[in-house]
Amino acid sequence: MNIIDIIEKKKKGEELTKEEIYFSIEGILNGRVADYQMSALLMAICLKGMTIQETTDLTLAMKYSGDVINLSEIGKTVVDKHSTGGIGDKTTLIVGPIMAALNVPIAKMSGRGLGITGGTIDKLDSIPGFSSEVSDEKFIELVKTVGLSDIAQTKSLAPADKKLYALRDVTGTVDSIPLIASSIMSKKLASGAEAIVLDVKCGTGAFMRDLDSARELADTMIKIAELDDRDCTAVISDMNQPLGYTVGNLLEVIEAAQFLTGKVRNPRLYELIRELCKNMYILSDEYMNLSLDYYDKNTDLDKDDPRNLTNIHNLVYEKIDEILKTNAPYEKFKDFISAQGGDASFVDKLLDIDLNGKDFAEFTNEGYKQILYTGDKPAVITKIDAEQIGRVSLELGAGRIKKEDEIDLFAGVVIHKVVGDTVSKNDAIMTIYSKDKFNIKDATEMLEDAIIYSDVESYVPEAARGIVLDVI
Amino acid sequence: MNIIDIIEKKKKGEELTKEEIYFSIEGILNGRVADYQMSALLMAICLKGMTIQETTDLTLAMKYSGDVINLSEIGKTVVDKHSTGGIGDKTTLIVGPIMAALNVPIAKMSGRGLGITGGTIDKLDSIPGFSSEVSDEKFIELVKTVGLSDIAQTKSLAPADKKLYALRDVTGTVDSIPLIASSIMSKKLASGAEAIVLDVKCGTGAFMRDLDSARELADTMIKIAELDDRDCTAVISDMNQPLGYTVGNLLEVIEAAQFLTGKVRNPRLYELIRELCKNMYILSDEYMNLSLDYYDKNTDLDKDDPRNLTNIHNLVYEKIDEILKTNAPYEKFKDFISAQGGDASFVDKLLDIDLNGKDFAEFTNEGYKQILYTGDKPAVITKIDAEQIGRVSLELGAGRIKKEDEIDLFAGVVIHKVVGDTVSKNDAIMTIYSKDKFNIKDATEMLEDAIIYSDVESYVPEAARGIVLDVI
Repeated sequence: MNIIDIIEKKKKGEELTKEEIYFSIEGILNGRVADYQMSALLMAICLKGMTIQETTDLTLAMKYSGDVINLSEIGKTVVDKHSTGGIGDKTTLIVGPIMAALNVPIAKMSGRGLGITGGTIDKLDSIPGFSSEVSDEKFIELVKTVGLSDIAQTKSLAPADKKLYALRDVTGTVDSIPLIASSIMSKKLASGAEAIVLDVKCGTGAFMRDLDSARELADTMIKIAELDDRDCTAVISDMNQPLGYTVGNLLEVIEAAQFLTGKVRNPRLYELIRELCKNMYILSDEYMNLSLDYYDKNTDLDKDDPRNLTNIHNLVYEKIDEILKTNAPYEKFKDFISAQGGDASFVDKLLDIDLNGKDFAEFTNEGYKQILYTGDKPAVITKIDAEQIGRVSLELGAGRIKKEDEIDLFAGVVIHKVVGDTVSKNDAIMTIYSKDKFNIKDATEMLEDAIIYSDVESYVPEAARGIVLDVI
Repeated sequence: MNIIDIIEKKKKGEELTKEEIYFSIEGILNGRVADYQMSALLMAICLKGMTIQETTDLTLAMKYSGDVINLSEIGKTVVDKHSTGGIGDKTTLIVGPIMAALNVPIAKMSGRGLGITGGTIDKLDSIPGFSSEVSDEKFIELVKTVGLSDIAQTKSLAPADKKLYALRDVTGTVDSIPLIASSIMSKKLASGAEAIVLDVKCGTGAFMRDLDSARELADTMIKIAELDDRDCTAVISDMNQPLGYTVGNLLEVIEAAQFLTGKVRNPRLYELIRELCKNMYILSDEYMNLSLDYYDKNTDLDKDDPRNLTNIHNLVYEKIDEILKTNAPYEKFKDFISAQGGDASFVDKLLDIDLNGKDFAEFTNEGYKQILYTGDKPAVITKIDAEQIGRVSLELGAGRIKKEDEIDLFAGVVIHKVVGDTVSKNDAIMTIYSKDKFNIKDATEMLEDAIIYSDVESYVPEAARGIVLDVI
């Protein structure tokens, strides 16, 4: 077997065998395949595609290129949630504590941000003392005692994926569904969760720009999961506007904390959180109990009647809504932060910050500027472009362009007015925060470009489109 | 400008600008473009193609990446001939002396063989003392005094092409018309010839397997030449069977020498030589004189009558046939060999060798084996697969698999019976020569697979198909 024949085969659009895929992936770690050969193969994959069998073989080859974590010691089904990456996506910080409060153990490995997409580990790093570098044993111990742990992916997790990802990043071979799906799933499968809920983002602020390609990515990942014996559900969610009111690191932790206590809950964020939690719950051991309980209480029901399933799912929604009326998720969040060395009293202080005022600038000593609505007549916001907000946030210092870049954990964007809001002259639409990195003038212009207004008179609200576009 | 955007652009099938192409090509020499980025771009080019403008820009970027030779000092139009590479292709060794004998100066830079394709420089190296390493000044001096010089491409000639070629060879990106055309033409244009005749091989023993792709390659190279202000003609010739009676290095020099003296002239080889020489002559200064002379002698002719052109072309054929009845081409060959340090008396000795006997084995002390026809009934040879003969020849040691490989200058294949010949039991079809490199049993089996016979009774000779398939 030799790599040139494998490249030629894929170039012709033929299906690679499992052996050929393993040879290629092992080759980039053992040196038998050079970087320049792998990048040619990656380009051929981008342009000629891969079958689901090839994509699964590629995923498994990368999964087994490093350590594979065994979570069976936890004794319950561990449910993972993974987002394909969006702008202002703080769902992990909210979903984790809710699920833990509902007795569903969460053992999560998260990434750092790259490009316009943020990463959960960067957000958690904005909490003084918090450590995401934890041994596998400690990780499992934390899940058993606290019910929730979130750590950085270790270097020994899917090292072939790291190598491939670095190469794709500099060779124009990022946007390929088989490559994106196998990269995500190799890490998910290696990090041990038995059930996975995928949050596949779709829109200007995401890899997948339209619903068709988001569905294709979701289908691909679900099939890979099934071929590796995992339960998997995909929620496809809209990413044409930023998620929630904040984009940044500490800014998003504040929004997550305030969401958990109920102080501020962006409606679209709430809708997505509810859907993710519901689908995670359905894959958990708790769901089995809920279901048994339902039929125990209603012994005369026909189990084949689909209305029963709807009723049970509604019970799950109720459980989520109920737990969010209690302090339990927020307490779980603080327990999790404390258990990983973070300062829980710092988190408490975040609850007092009014993001619509000047509190954050005082709290962090960050430079800031407000973007105002300057029109004379009142108007309605019809669009806030997620990608553009992501770019501004990146330029402000909230994200990294290259892996080695340092980030400004306090930098970012607060969105005061969202799509559908009516605004009058001099209303603050957004506030940007940055140490010094960014030319305020450029940021202002970029943000002004990102917002589209409509006359109040001629504005016809579209049929309300929810954030959840599909569940597969 | 950055290489990732350029790769992404080509991946989408868009046309690259001249600046983007120069940036990429300069980048691989100055280090701003990594090998793994170039190989991704090469794969995208293979799969998405290039327009003629892009291909020309790529050619010129590679041409100007190193020294560009100026042949104007020679004072006459220098006509080059280039073959895209075939099995048993010794035409340069024959065409050069004929043209020089016809007063058309030949200043040629040739390559070494790689893979199943031989190289003229390797063939010339089998002559004791011959040197292909000559300075540019000496090269021009030789063309002026002898009328003919053939030297190895210098390292400073199109260095970007060398880099790209090495990368293509190991990344499965060889078979792309824009890449093949630009590689050939960048060296041709840098080596200074003002007029070029291309011998585009077509068949199992060539890059181009069918006439359509051979025509496409020829068209592409002609357009590049025209955009760089060169006259260019392409002869498309059949390469489904080896060219002539020999495949190897010294073996091909023997056939060339014997062709020049008229001792042995394979008819297909003669047909091709005649066509190449005719087209080279047409591009030379001599042709202008011939044409003027024709109209001087026939002052009453209508210059717009196309029959005149046919008549003049027939005069060119006559000139070639006439010169081949004289000793002039062979003497020119020896002058050229002597002028570059080679032993002309060695060349004379080659004339005595009967390749159908055992002379060559005695002359070189090489091991050999004859492939016999073993059928009981007489049969007709209907096919001798060029690619397979090339592979056997490579395995025998006549060619190199990797650039660093040493080659056996005496190894190769002599073809005693060609397509259309009738053979009887125990007739020798071929003889293979090798020092020791190759398992004779494997070679025999491969050669037996390469030959297809037909019953004499049922054999219907195809309408005679010449070796020259098209002239563009």
